[in-house]
Amino acid sequence: MALIVQKFGGSSVANAERVMNVARIVTETYAKGNDVVVVVSAQGDTTDDLIAKAAEISAKPSKREMDQLLAAGEQISIALLSMAIEKLGFPVCSLLGWQAGFSTNSVYGSARIKKINTERIKVELSRKNIVVVAGFQGINRYDDITTLGRGGSDTSAVAIAAAMHADRCQIFTDVEGVYTADPRKVKNAVKLSEITYDEMLELATLGAQVLNNRSVEMAKKYDVVLEVLSSMTNAPGTIVKESVKMEKMLVRGVTKDVNVARISIIGVPNVPGIAYKIFGKLAAENINVDIILQSVGRNDTKDITFTVSADNCEKTLEVLRGLELTAGLKIEYDDQNVAKVSAVGAGMETHPGVAASMFKALFEADINIQMISTSEIKISVLIDKADADKAVAAIHDAFIPDSKD
Amino acid sequence: MALIVQKFGGSSVANAERVMNVARIVTETYAKGNDVVVVVSAQGDTTDDLIAKAAEISAKPSKREMDQLLAAGEQISIALLSMAIEKLGFPVCSLLGWQAGFSTNSVYGSARIKKINTERIKVELSRKNIVVVAGFQGINRYDDITTLGRGGSDTSAVAIAAAMHADRCQIFTDVEGVYTADPRKVKNAVKLSEITYDEMLELATLGAQVLNNRSVEMAKKYDVVLEVLSSMTNAPGTIVKESVKMEKMLVRGVTKDVNVARISIIGVPNVPGIAYKIFGKLAAENINVDIILQSVGRNDTKDITFTVSADNCEKTLEVLRGLELTAGLKIEYDDQNVAKVSAVGAGMETHPGVAASMFKALFEADINIQMISTSEIKISVLIDKADADKAVAAIHDAFIPDSKD
Repeated sequence: MALIVQKFGGSSVANAERVMNVARIVTETYAKGNDVVVVVSAQGDTTDDLIAKAAEISAKPSKREMDQLLAAGEQISIALLSMAIEKLGFPVCSLLGWQAGFSTNSVYGSARIKKINTERIKVELSRKNIVVVAGFQGINRYDDITTLGRGGSDTSAVAIAAAMHADRCQIFTDVEGVYTADPRKVKNAVKLSEITYDEMLELATLGAQVLNNRSVEMAKKYDVVLEVLSSMTNAPGTIVKESVKMEKMLVRGVTKDVNVARISIIGVPNVPGIAYKIFGKLAAENINVDIILQSVGRNDTKDITFTVSADNCEKTLEVLRGLELTAGLKIEYDDQNVAKVSAVGAGMETHPGVAASMFKALFEADINIQMISTSEIKISVLIDKADADKAVAAIHDAFIPDSKD
Repeated sequence: MALIVQKFGGSSVANAERVMNVARIVTETYAKGNDVVVVVSAQGDTTDDLIAKAAEISAKPSKREMDQLLAAGEQISIALLSMAIEKLGFPVCSLLGWQAGFSTNSVYGSARIKKINTERIKVELSRKNIVVVAGFQGINRYDDITTLGRGGSDTSAVAIAAAMHADRCQIFTDVEGVYTADPRKVKNAVKLSEITYDEMLELATLGAQVLNNRSVEMAKKYDVVLEVLSSMTNAPGTIVKESVKMEKMLVRGVTKDVNVARISIIGVPNVPGIAYKIFGKLAAENINVDIILQSVGRNDTKDITFTVSADNCEKTLEVLRGLELTAGLKIEYDDQNVAKVSAVGAGMETHPGVAASMFKALFEADINIQMISTSEIKISVLIDKADADKAVAAIHDAFIPDSKD
């Protein structure tokens, strides 16, 4: 007998039929003799509907009242899922965030979990109940409702799994697992049976959009074995854990990110402190800078080029203009025509030559590389957006064995 | 400076515009220097929508999960009203039932308030916040969400007013107060400026549908001064309190109730215990019997006639058939063509002759009386439903001075 935490997102419980489907998955797991804690998000469009209701009243509601409002969404979905589980004849008990013991800090809208008092969950499990917990929410030290922000239900699930030393935390989504590339775009994309936390983190950051980063970090920290799988099929998913058996694949995933802007500052005087001035200010404004490249320019000046997410381009330009760098500087940017393509794999650490093979693949596909960035387990290149899909396919073909033949 | 509790029902907060209207009423009261605690119900159709969602999943959901579900309704409305109050520039804090300290028993769906721990409300008032409390809900000793059942938000408001010794509890509805008769039907109907708890109770029972009976009983018990008034107009409402200054009106309200069925059992053997057998069984089935009339029949038998609400007619007939009373009994019923018309007034206690005047008025209007029932402050007659409006007008004209001339 094992303790399994299962998490279902908003689309998995969007209507009565899907709620019944989730109830079947949960009760099958329970019927096999497992203790089951289920974490659910608000139904499909509920959160958007509530945000729209608030917007009708106030353009800038306080975050406290916004959290009070939004937390009603999961309250509805846990009650409905529990009714569906009852209907299948199984014992069940729904718990709101505070009933399940979630204590958070007081940052309304993106609170951090401080502690989970799991006593109530344990009592309900000892009564043989399936426990259905509202994701995304908790209470702060003042007993006020808080929400965890984007991807918060994943974090709730991993936090419960960590606090209760669950044997597995299953994250049900609308994909069957983690793929080596987007299967809609790359015909040879393969579902990975296992992946490391670090690889998953790089893939999540790069836009694979399967798992929320914060939840992967927490799983890594507390050694929670995650499984990403689909609520629509019965297929086994992808296991995320600390170390995986070395497979033949050096590169485990190839992704593209088109939400990228490239910004260049040309003619920066060659004196110390300029880079600090620029990037310190951007950090203070909460603008995340990704690839940075500095090159020697003409006449004792240098050029600095960096990338930010395209969403942040406008704000970044404002910050740069406000900096009053010396006259003669020229700022150029492109937030329309660039894309970042990355190859990720924990095996890269011990295998030199991956970068070379990747550049070769791009060269053979006639793709020009604008910028390069590497980490221990990742190589990213900035290229023309028009070439992005071709680049992903070329890199994928170069590294990933074609298992579909 | 006074402490005022204001309660707004679902139709008063049905949409953004009405929520803003309520926010204006609340902030005007606060701006006059009062402490204000506001109790709100779920928005318009929210509760019905949630019930429909549950019905899609299960025909018979558990009451615990139903309460968990329904409590989300007020959570939404308190957050929205608080945002509206913020928008008008006033300090505010919304509180769920449990945050406001409502402890109830564990009868899900129709829980009784056991205690209110008002500490949090007091803290927020001392911070000069307007406090917006979710009506209709609390938690039981297990920290599970409960709801108070029909009219529960009225009860929540009166309970807070009682616990905090509020100077007044204002119940905002869609009528301007309590009238001597339905103003849409009786042209001379007059709004009462004051009414006693007992009169209000009789009027509420009789279908005036202004205030929930349980809340009036609680107000009477704890001496809470109630005011019934409209959220749509600025007019003063009706004050409900223990004793009111004697006005010239002996009869304070005339009402009709058409949700009535008359049931007759004809040919009951004249032996002891039959009435007990019948009405004991009906009580055990939770069927409320109103007027009872027993008459001597032919051949040592008697006839028993009584009224129940029309909704309960079918169930009552089943119970009677199940009783296996002696053969030869005949059961007759009419759940279509009868109505109960009542005159209520605390002054009746000390003024004999009211009944006679009432019967005279009905006689002059050519209305036949089928049954009569009296209490200290009420006289009810059962008549043909077709005559009901005419009867109300006739009794009203006989007792209530025509203040509109």
